[in-house]
Amino acid sequence: MSRTERGCVPRYARWLQSTNNITQQFLAIGGRQDFVSLAGGLPASELYPIEKMREAMDRALTRWKSDALEYGPVEGFPALRDAIARRMSRMTGQRFGVDNILITTGAMQGLDLMGKVLLDPGDLVVAQFPTYLGALDAWRARQPTYEKLTWDLQRPGFEEALRHAKFVYAVPNYSNPTGVLVATSLRERLLEKVLEAGTLLVEDDPYLPLQLDGTPGPSILAIDSAKVKQTSYRGPVVYLGTLSKSVVPGLRVGWVVADPELVQTLAVAKQSSDLSSSMLTHALALEFIDGTFEQEHAPKVVAVYRQRRDALLHAAEEHLSDWFEWDVPPGGMFVWMRARAGASAPVINTNDLYAYAVEEKVAFVPSSVFDFDGRLTTAMRVNFSRSSPEVIAEGVRRLRRAVERYLTSNSRVPPSLSRASF
Amino acid sequence: MSRTERGCVPRYARWLQSTNNITQQFLAIGGRQDFVSLAGGLPASELYPIEKMREAMDRALTRWKSDALEYGPVEGFPALRDAIARRMSRMTGQRFGVDNILITTGAMQGLDLMGKVLLDPGDLVVAQFPTYLGALDAWRARQPTYEKLTWDLQRPGFEEALRHAKFVYAVPNYSNPTGVLVATSLRERLLEKVLEAGTLLVEDDPYLPLQLDGTPGPSILAIDSAKVKQTSYRGPVVYLGTLSKSVVPGLRVGWVVADPELVQTLAVAKQSSDLSSSMLTHALALEFIDGTFEQEHAPKVVAVYRQRRDALLHAAEEHLSDWFEWDVPPGGMFVWMRARAGASAPVINTNDLYAYAVEEKVAFVPSSVFDFDGRLTTAMRVNFSRSSPEVIAEGVRRLRRAVERYLTSNSRVPPSLSRASF
Repeated sequence: MSRTERGCVPRYARWLQSTNNITQQFLAIGGRQDFVSLAGGLPASELYPIEKMREAMDRALTRWKSDALEYGPVEGFPALRDAIARRMSRMTGQRFGVDNILITTGAMQGLDLMGKVLLDPGDLVVAQFPTYLGALDAWRARQPTYEKLTWDLQRPGFEEALRHAKFVYAVPNYSNPTGVLVATSLRERLLEKVLEAGTLLVEDDPYLPLQLDGTPGPSILAIDSAKVKQTSYRGPVVYLGTLSKSVVPGLRVGWVVADPELVQTLAVAKQSSDLSSSMLTHALALEFIDGTFEQEHAPKVVAVYRQRRDALLHAAEEHLSDWFEWDVPPGGMFVWMRARAGASAPVINTNDLYAYAVEEKVAFVPSSVFDFDGRLTTAMRVNFSRSSPEVIAEGVRRLRRAVERYLTSNSRVPPSLSRASF
Repeated sequence: MSRTERGCVPRYARWLQSTNNITQQFLAIGGRQDFVSLAGGLPASELYPIEKMREAMDRALTRWKSDALEYGPVEGFPALRDAIARRMSRMTGQRFGVDNILITTGAMQGLDLMGKVLLDPGDLVVAQFPTYLGALDAWRARQPTYEKLTWDLQRPGFEEALRHAKFVYAVPNYSNPTGVLVATSLRERLLEKVLEAGTLLVEDDPYLPLQLDGTPGPSILAIDSAKVKQTSYRGPVVYLGTLSKSVVPGLRVGWVVADPELVQTLAVAKQSSDLSSSMLTHALALEFIDGTFEQEHAPKVVAVYRQRRDALLHAAEEHLSDWFEWDVPPGGMFVWMRARAGASAPVINTNDLYAYAVEEKVAFVPSSVFDFDGRLTTAMRVNFSRSSPEVIAEGVRRLRRAVERYLTSNSRVPPSLSRASF
């Protein structure tokens, strides 16, 4: 009996019927030399502080010795939790205690743990629309339902949805995928409605350090914590931060700020996921945030990303503006390009366009993956952080060829690829 | 309206009603200076290779540069996957490919991912009994049901259970909690039955390096892979390995060996949990396994643990043998002490005894947490890896006092503590 003929193996859990491997595809394409990937959300790796990491290791091992090599408290390395509490207190002008902080494997694990702790199948999440793909992925195994948060907060039925929601998900600073900066007044109004409805609000803030023009808004966490002076925060905001954009992603250090009781419950869920994170990465992270590194490093990153954003916008203006329109993102890593609407505009389905783009050896992310039901097919997310201005320009030229071939084709899907692949 | 009075917050997911925070309690007690903790499963931290870690960091950053600080492939750092594939091939004499390997956050994440990928509520797991607490924790959120694997493989109903099981869970080398080494013939027979039933077999092997007397058995993975020569393994065994016992736990590097299709599905689930692990920890792990470190380090660890095991057995013989009996574990980190049965023996409930032990400032793990329905209350797991022989002896003397007080008390539960705490 050969292995592959044995056949009867147990079936997978039900949620896997609804999943896809699109992010893995993007990562794989990102590693191919002949491809221009404008798909991922990766930082500029040439800015990674390699020598500073070596020094951080020396200092951390001298300072913490075997404590840095230990199974740690599931909530995180105590000195790092303390430093994050102080950092969040500085950022917001309010007081956060160690008991408000859980250190996670990137902000992604914070999303996963919120789903694990709050969601049963069929439960409702009200999610900023279009929605970060990673958040939809994180919650897929819990099989929730979704309502859209479009920032039209007066919309009929919205308050009713909030009352039934396990939590609201928002990315007010330079949202992924759209790059939108949400106005302070809308942040305040959303918070009010969340408080009225008695639900929780997950504020995902990875792009905070990437301020290309102007300044970000006040975090909803800061708005809420200013209202009630307490020794530790007990409100409905669950704030997610990360060092992936301001230091390096490879430490995989993120954090959750929340009510202490919720932090403890998330810790129970984290322990059942991985026992604890690497204390060594926590001790290293501490060396980067306990000092001036970020203040010196962030402007360099911002200057590079601003130049790359402008290179993308310049090339897109020349090559793509007949078919797409966009807003200039004031921060973050992405431009959200929407197919032009109107009677004279061609109908562009970015799922189909993606297949042509892959044939031209350029990748973007089609809008459908940022929609829980996959129906949004008229836009694409284009990344500018990872590639040089020259590579970005070449990518846009390839995109133009892909659009032209797509629009002149009969089938709309080239024979070599099908939409079934995402 | 004060925050704490707001009251109406969303309820947690249903599985949290069945959880406990006992491992967190143990970790907390482990950190208290006045306590003797014989509860956890922690290595001897004085053996952690601090200077070698510093050297590994230097080499890894020189060798891999920014690749070590990147978001990585979700399956793991490619060179580490390759090294683990070669290691598993050496260990088993069979051939494993990179596509058989997924790197995880400790072996714990492998357990979590198996649950995430295979289990819907009510699905059946056949688990070696008593069962590693971390495995029960990992699968709790998926709400499975359990059948016991007791190694009485002829038991009526066992084959029927296997046919319905999503997977079998076994720890054949120095099982946690019992320290048992499962005979080779039983490993072979279990594999045959798993193949007949068309299910999967999770072989958890963290204690492989901790061979105190004699040698471990052949892994079930090795037995299976020897049967069918292929370029990559496609069988039903899902093997979990880790560097937590042989190098340091603080890297949180473990791995899964499985059929490539299952590896890819586990990778989808891992990506939705944390995007990817820290590539830096993978690059560091590679420096430890690509060389002679483990061969030189393991004998030192084993010598220390053997001395500590013998110190525990010696003290227990003097102080606890009136009430408990045990087998000498040939490897691992634990002695499993069973309350003596028989008409003249007192009835000992180790949940109740635990409360007295905490009053005497000593901790063990009561057997109930290794039973999915909590009914096993006649044994305790006692750790010997973490503490010096002197501290172990003091812990056993405290345990003796706890037993004496417990047996002479009327209430069986001291007023200061109740069983509700676990």
